[in-house]
Amino acid sequence: MSSDDPTLALARELIARHSVTPDDSGCLDVIAARLAPLGFACERIDGGGVSNLWARRGRAQPVLCFAGHTDVVPTGPLDAWATPPFEPTIRDGVLYGRGAADMKSSLAAFVVAIERFVAAHPSHAGSIALLLTSDEEGAATHGTVKVVEALAARGERLDYCIVGEPTSVAVLGDTIKNGRRGSLSATLRVKGLQGHVAYPHLARNPVHRFAPALAELAATKWDEGNEFFPPTTWQVSNIHAGTGANNVIPGVCEVMFNFRFASVSSAESLEARTREVLDRHGLEYEIDWHLSGKPFITGRGRLVAALSDAIRETLAVDTELSTTGGTSDGRFIADICREVVEFGPVNASIHKVNEHIAVDALAPLAAVYERAMARLLA
Amino acid sequence: MSSDDPTLALARELIARHSVTPDDSGCLDVIAARLAPLGFACERIDGGGVSNLWARRGRAQPVLCFAGHTDVVPTGPLDAWATPPFEPTIRDGVLYGRGAADMKSSLAAFVVAIERFVAAHPSHAGSIALLLTSDEEGAATHGTVKVVEALAARGERLDYCIVGEPTSVAVLGDTIKNGRRGSLSATLRVKGLQGHVAYPHLARNPVHRFAPALAELAATKWDEGNEFFPPTTWQVSNIHAGTGANNVIPGVCEVMFNFRFASVSSAESLEARTREVLDRHGLEYEIDWHLSGKPFITGRGRLVAALSDAIRETLAVDTELSTTGGTSDGRFIADICREVVEFGPVNASIHKVNEHIAVDALAPLAAVYERAMARLLA
Ligand SMILES: [Zn+2]
Ligand SMILES: [Zn+2]
Repeated sequence: MSSDDPTLALARELIARHSVTPDDSGCLDVIAARLAPLGFACERIDGGGVSNLWARRGRAQPVLCFAGHTDVVPTGPLDAWATPPFEPTIRDGVLYGRGAADMKSSLAAFVVAIERFVAAHPSHAGSIALLLTSDEEGAATHGTVKVVEALAARGERLDYCIVGEPTSVAVLGDTIKNGRRGSLSATLRVKGLQGHVAYPHLARNPVHRFAPALAELAATKWDEGNEFFPPTTWQVSNIHAGTGANNVIPGVCEVMFNFRFASVSSAESLEARTREVLDRHGLEYEIDWHLSGKPFITGRGRLVAALSDAIRETLAVDTELSTTGGTSDGRFIADICREVVEFGPVNASIHKVNEHIAVDALAPLAAVYERAMARLLA
Repeated sequence: MSSDDPTLALARELIARHSVTPDDSGCLDVIAARLAPLGFACERIDGGGVSNLWARRGRAQPVLCFAGHTDVVPTGPLDAWATPPFEPTIRDGVLYGRGAADMKSSLAAFVVAIERFVAAHPSHAGSIALLLTSDEEGAATHGTVKVVEALAARGERLDYCIVGEPTSVAVLGDTIKNGRRGSLSATLRVKGLQGHVAYPHLARNPVHRFAPALAELAATKWDEGNEFFPPTTWQVSNIHAGTGANNVIPGVCEVMFNFRFASVSSAESLEARTREVLDRHGLEYEIDWHLSGKPFITGRGRLVAALSDAIRETLAVDTELSTTGGTSDGRFIADICREVVEFGPVNASIHKVNEHIAVDALAPLAAVYERAMARLLA
């Protein structure tokens, strides 16, 4: 790999910026300065201390959007890094630095792919867009979701979106995420009546009353999943009752739980089914729900085909589709975009010390993005 | 009630002493000074900061023992008392002070009853004894249990024991405790494997695994109880899992529970049955057991008859037998005594501020003890 590879050069430039969530630290300016000469209309949709960029070349459909984030997670203990996290360093063919894998290399590859594609196809079909935020790793309340709201408000629709998250597992190209499960959390307070263990008839033990409902919820098959999603899962993350005294029946049992759910279920159906179990067991309770991500899914359509073909052609790898793992900004983009997938570098080192990417993965990553673009817009 | 009633006078003298657990504050000396002139051999079996008195008149069987404690629980907030807790005060026919009900009035009634009985029957049958401690309300590790061990070591056996605990509920005489349930506690740690809620197949949720066992334990009928005991009960006092994070499957679930058990069950049988449930559900766990009191029961024999008759004759009240409530020192005495019961004043105010006893309950309490003594030893 030549040391003057433009993807490597731009990745290094971005990694050198201390853009810890939600600080963009000028990354978006660097990128916009590369896109504007290509004919992109660059628009900043900042707010709440978060920097967002919406850049678009062309006014026609279909719109192919590259999406991602300039922010990185905190470094963790500095002395655990072999080299400083914001000094991009190549050692034995590996580029080290915070954001090397998640996801400044993807941003660099986006830009280089777009530059090459536009040079080769100045009058391409449809539109090319970039949707970038500095708040993906944090609260994510003023990031991609705000840009999506702004686009929706003016009727702007996307057709294809490639989110540059590091989805590869063992080797570059082995995995595309074509959807994500939803995440639904709740805090449940089962009420009882406090009392002395010697007089249980004067008390009502919320742990005992909750027990059969808990057993039923833990054993419930919520759905079968489908071609793309594993079955919905339910997990208790916390349960607390009692003050430490061993002769007091507690007055309340507090439980936190989380659904990771397939698109065959909905937040509404899972809430209703949970309540049905709690009610049928005669529990007195309060429950607060928090939907942190709706599920989205992209079937085997044009986008998956274009990206899979580009990967096979560039890397000679057969890609698998996956929907596992946490949530991503894809959940927001799916509201205004027919087909959304995620594809990027190997994710083994993300969010860890000594985060890295193989130097010889950078040019192929840009090539994959460029070839997918060509299949959709050339 | 005459203000020179000797039970009232001695009760006041004892209440005036600040004998907060485990401090006897001279109460045992006051009592021993009254018994010695009657021909009692008075022996102090002190240790571990606790004062204990064993006093006995006569060497023959049967031995009728009066048992109790000179210690009191702390006063609680002083400004919540209408009069200072260690200044015995009569107001509207009620004697106020810490220990007025639990159980310095009983101690005074013991002494006065014995004085009168010995005066009337200087050559009574069998022996009269007193077993008093200053550590009943505290840890109870150096109190009655140590005296019982000393007596057992030299082969001294008791036949009848009346513990002066405040057992009356609505009116003096309505309730005798003829036994107490056992108390068996445990701390259980159900082990799992910590992980992320998005990857439950890589974790093992101890809350989920414990749930069906918990439901089964909460629903188990441990026994039917018997004539004297209600069925054994099982109560969870504490359950804790999770660190607060709502995306982490906890690695361990810690549970504290307590059995209050009838004499038809044993600590060994309850431990074995609990383990059977946990094992059958395939749980990996650690469990620590603590037996804080074995059950004891005294059937409708000579002691219950003598005390019930004395109550009916003195107070015109039909007594009920009961085994409810917490543990008492009767659990230790039962090891060396065929028949053990508890009987004393109304317990509504015990351990509270403004603890009290009706002044006109004092002489009848002494009369009941005296008449019971007469039925057993005259
Ligand atoms: Zn990321
Ligand atoms: Zn007491």
